[in-house]
Amino acid sequence: MAMIAPSRRVRRTPFSDGVEAAGVKGYTVYNHMLLPTVFRSIEEDYRHLKTAVQVWDVACERQIELRGPDAARLMQMLTPRDLRGMLPGQCYYVPIVDETGGMLNDPVAVKLAEDRWWISIADSDLLLWVKAIAHGWRLDVLVDEPDVSPLAVQGPLADDLMARVFGDGVRDVRFFRFGVFDFQGRSLVIARSGYSKQGGFEIYVEGTDIGMPLWNALMEAGRDLDVRAGCPNLVERIEGGLLSYGNDMTRENTPHECGLGRFCNTQTAIGCVGRDALLRVAMEGPVRQIRPIAIEGDAVPICDQAWPLMDGLHQVGRITSAAWSPDYETNVAIGMVRMTHWNAGTELDVVLPDGSIRPVTVYESFWQ
Amino acid sequence: MAMIAPSRRVRRTPFSDGVEAAGVKGYTVYNHMLLPTVFRSIEEDYRHLKTAVQVWDVACERQIELRGPDAARLMQMLTPRDLRGMLPGQCYYVPIVDETGGMLNDPVAVKLAEDRWWISIADSDLLLWVKAIAHGWRLDVLVDEPDVSPLAVQGPLADDLMARVFGDGVRDVRFFRFGVFDFQGRSLVIARSGYSKQGGFEIYVEGTDIGMPLWNALMEAGRDLDVRAGCPNLVERIEGGLLSYGNDMTRENTPHECGLGRFCNTQTAIGCVGRDALLRVAMEGPVRQIRPIAIEGDAVPICDQAWPLMDGLHQVGRITSAAWSPDYETNVAIGMVRMTHWNAGTELDVVLPDGSIRPVTVYESFWQ
Repeated sequence: MAMIAPSRRVRRTPFSDGVEAAGVKGYTVYNHMLLPTVFRSIEEDYRHLKTAVQVWDVACERQIELRGPDAARLMQMLTPRDLRGMLPGQCYYVPIVDETGGMLNDPVAVKLAEDRWWISIADSDLLLWVKAIAHGWRLDVLVDEPDVSPLAVQGPLADDLMARVFGDGVRDVRFFRFGVFDFQGRSLVIARSGYSKQGGFEIYVEGTDIGMPLWNALMEAGRDLDVRAGCPNLVERIEGGLLSYGNDMTRENTPHECGLGRFCNTQTAIGCVGRDALLRVAMEGPVRQIRPIAIEGDAVPICDQAWPLMDGLHQVGRITSAAWSPDYETNVAIGMVRMTHWNAGTELDVVLPDGSIRPVTVYESFWQ
Repeated sequence: MAMIAPSRRVRRTPFSDGVEAAGVKGYTVYNHMLLPTVFRSIEEDYRHLKTAVQVWDVACERQIELRGPDAARLMQMLTPRDLRGMLPGQCYYVPIVDETGGMLNDPVAVKLAEDRWWISIADSDLLLWVKAIAHGWRLDVLVDEPDVSPLAVQGPLADDLMARVFGDGVRDVRFFRFGVFDFQGRSLVIARSGYSKQGGFEIYVEGTDIGMPLWNALMEAGRDLDVRAGCPNLVERIEGGLLSYGNDMTRENTPHECGLGRFCNTQTAIGCVGRDALLRVAMEGPVRQIRPIAIEGDAVPICDQAWPLMDGLHQVGRITSAAWSPDYETNVAIGMVRMTHWNAGTELDVVLPDGSIRPVTVYESFWQ
């Protein structure tokens, strides 16, 4: 493995000083920004995430702010999920599709008010798509990237830690809802959400200047809870079936192929630019879909390119994320499998980059 | 510095096997793809680039293909450069701007035919902007990312190496023109261009499958020329004043601020979506602009965030790229400076991240 080369183009975050002081060992780049991938080891970070509480620099989940009379209309143009029932204070996971129904991103939409939204994005410059749609359709809306950097607090002790910094009221925030809480005289949006299955919060830190003060306050308040710097954990997210845009799905896939059909209301999401393209797939269903897959044998290498799934000599799918799970004592994986082979219990082979072949089994559901 | 974490989201290239075999030591991520940054050392790579020939994996310069009756109209909507005189076979460096005149990318446009263009992009998902403009304006054009990965051959011996693989005809390709040449029965577009001032070519490798065969053919043919794997070199590109999107300019800047006014024909580039916004700045000129800057003293650290340029207590600009130049025996840098302080010879101070202050001088022109 090689080192990551620093440059201004690969943006530091308001929390980078804290991340470095905590001894980050690996980075990836996400939305042109540094995202930590490992502190002690993937396995040690995993164990700690499942038992204590971690603070994650996920500033790379950049926000797109929509503001103005056409904000809600624009938001509905972006996604096949019907947003009419959504209230201020709610967060929705929204597949974003192009005019062909191809996935452009899978963000969380945060409805701040009827005419003000944040889109908390995965790894693609969705801002360019949203700005050009607003321009091309002459909508009356401002679209920009505000100075908002999410900081996640994840793990079974997340409520305890957060209550110490923001007060007990934060315990009452429901899943995928948000409240507004005070920190050093600043009002911050805090949602119960995050890219793990261990529970926790995402704090939308508005203003780079309070990034490190908040980081330090959380670390200080959680000392006896063994709070540590952490990051999205490859193993834990595969166990939980949390998809990663760019890894498990790309523009080539529809939401239905990604198993996100339940977040699509193609009939009623009127205005969505990909609606026509998705109507048929919504009726008939996709011909391939994401599945949990277990790979036999020892720990597999890191999956940095799609691994072919074979039924004998025929390719019937591919694996796009994989890792050894200490808790389930198998390699857990995420793959896209053709309809003919996607039933739970189906046994296939995967071809690893070194040419070796491993037996795999399609699972019914993810591990946690 | 930390390691870069592999994942499918950070795409490997058709040449990654060759890059790794050559002992790459540093990577960055560019258009969601691996881009090498150093092989032996920045300084050793620099010296070799200026004296021999290197093969660069710049597959991350992804292509956007425009195809159809409205391709030329769409291309003109993207840029304030007047494209009416451009002929098939030509390459144009084109600032791409949004509706406010802000830079979205600074690619090279390759005109394959009246109705077929490639846009060879810098680091932003320009595809999303172009697709949405085509959609919003209901243009009759296909927009997609083809399987085309540029491979650059750079250095004073580039002509000799290329002639051995593609024949002497390649020597006749003029600067920013391209020809079509055969490799193993495949027709490849080859342009005289590249992200260095040492001369050379960019081969638009169409088809992942011929990536490594071509890489190997070049390495084999150039053995006695001391050909090596290389990459864009931080020092050499600053000496030559080659800007980097995301480093030296962002969406916040107009082309005129970036010194790219000579690539803008705002009066005649009718149809460009940013034309109205740029008309005034084109007439009056920008109030800040990119300048070459020399920083006194020993080698500066890597510039991974903007360094403030001060006139006493007043900030009058910032430095966004900097490196020690062995040939010019000073720190060479690129910065954005206010009109009041941009004249050549102006002396200012720069504040480094550790708080130390260095004297700097604004230069008239870049070093090579």
